[in-house]
Amino acid sequence: METFEVKKMKTNPMNNKIEISAKNIIAVASGKGGVGKSTVSVNLALALVSKGKKVGVLDADIYGPNVPLMLGIRGEKATSDGSKIIPIKKHGLEIMSVGFITEENKALIWRGPLANKLIEQFLGDVAWGELDYLIIDLPPGTGDVPLSIIQKLNLTGAVIVTTPQEAAIADVVKMINMFETTNNKILGIVENMKYITCPDSQTKIELFPRSDDNDFSGFKYETISTFPFIPGIGNKDKNGIPFYLRNREHETSKEYDNLAKKVMTV
Amino acid sequence: METFEVKKMKTNPMNNKIEISAKNIIAVASGKGGVGKSTVSVNLALALVSKGKKVGVLDADIYGPNVPLMLGIRGEKATSDGSKIIPIKKHGLEIMSVGFITEENKALIWRGPLANKLIEQFLGDVAWGELDYLIIDLPPGTGDVPLSIIQKLNLTGAVIVTTPQEAAIADVVKMINMFETTNNKILGIVENMKYITCPDSQTKIELFPRSDDNDFSGFKYETISTFPFIPGIGNKDKNGIPFYLRNREHETSKEYDNLAKKVMTV
Repeated sequence: METFEVKKMKTNPMNNKIEISAKNIIAVASGKGGVGKSTVSVNLALALVSKGKKVGVLDADIYGPNVPLMLGIRGEKATSDGSKIIPIKKHGLEIMSVGFITEENKALIWRGPLANKLIEQFLGDVAWGELDYLIIDLPPGTGDVPLSIIQKLNLTGAVIVTTPQEAAIADVVKMINMFETTNNKILGIVENMKYITCPDSQTKIELFPRSDDNDFSGFKYETISTFPFIPGIGNKDKNGIPFYLRNREHETSKEYDNLAKKVMTV
Repeated sequence: METFEVKKMKTNPMNNKIEISAKNIIAVASGKGGVGKSTVSVNLALALVSKGKKVGVLDADIYGPNVPLMLGIRGEKATSDGSKIIPIKKHGLEIMSVGFITEENKALIWRGPLANKLIEQFLGDVAWGELDYLIIDLPPGTGDVPLSIIQKLNLTGAVIVTTPQEAAIADVVKMINMFETTNNKILGIVENMKYITCPDSQTKIELFPRSDDNDFSGFKYETISTFPFIPGIGNKDKNGIPFYLRNREHETSKEYDNLAKKVMTV
């Protein structure tokens, strides 16, 4: 693994938060993995770019840094200007990922303290441009790393991504508690993978049918977007173009535009 | 949160492993969350019971302990006989879960050291009967907690669950490295959520269509089972009966029987 020495970080002495040159910092969080958090992060970021915003994406999911794959960035490593790590630019985004500073396919047996140190570096030591929005793809869950991140940043707010399944709902409640406990604003819930459309019969097949226990009505935060499951939405095409950019008129791309607008009203 | 005092654990002085009264200990692991690891754990365990085996399930996924939900166990807490925690018995299984000793819906902001202590207790301080198989539903990823678990137990072997998506494949490689690095045997790969069958047209819709990069042929371990996505497979019915027990003749239940037979040949 390549490592970068952690330089003195710029922190605000009033509250010990790391300062980042972004007008808004939006955390995209989920209780469970595999619910589409990275997909939502990337497509939300691209939708914000299409509205003329300067946007950065920080892929902080140390256990599965998927953002580079989705954006068609492969094999690139982060470079340093001597004091800061330089984000990679693609599709109008500035992108930084744990994936850029680790060898692909190497066993990333992160121990807690190492993970936190790496993440602190990410937070304070990336040479972002002057961003309107920094979208942070958090690791799933309420563990050490997501907690450290949200405690060290002045978040504008959090978007919580979930699938409408019983096991995920309990996790959403835990996520809500984590953000409330740390005095952060929750912008709303994004319900993902609600159904899949059969290409032959056009039937909308519910992926997570309700049982007695999966009921979204109990959350005190609004569901601000609902997305279907789209096979291949996480894949780039052969030219490395992600779903949103190659399907601008798709109803799901338009729903990402709506989500971006909601985020912009905060 | 209720806590139990950690008693002196029985360890083997030769190798410092925790001794558990199970002839075989099978870890069910995944690189990503949300790929169906708990579903595979529970249904594999039930299939082993149907073959006449005495089976325990340890739900070690501290970030999302889903096993109790899937087995229709709700609101129950673990009890202690003074020195050991007593598993809950249901559907012929002995079941222990982090979910039994934590308050539901409480923010489980586990810090690394606390998580490890809790897990060590689980490993060494549960009053399992004489088991033929202990199935361990690991937390996803290669982090602190799964690593601690596999280092402290004499695993018979590991089953790695994944979906056939690009982002998951890189994670499988990391999982393989983790088990090889710790000198553990990998029984094989379980490929989950391969397709969904449309109830109207019977079309099999691939959920993760291949892109240039998602190719399972590169693994050096066999894919020992392939399962479709079945809406509601993670739900119990109104009587708390899980999928496998209420659909014994379903092709997916039969594939779980096959998986159990493969595990039994180890």
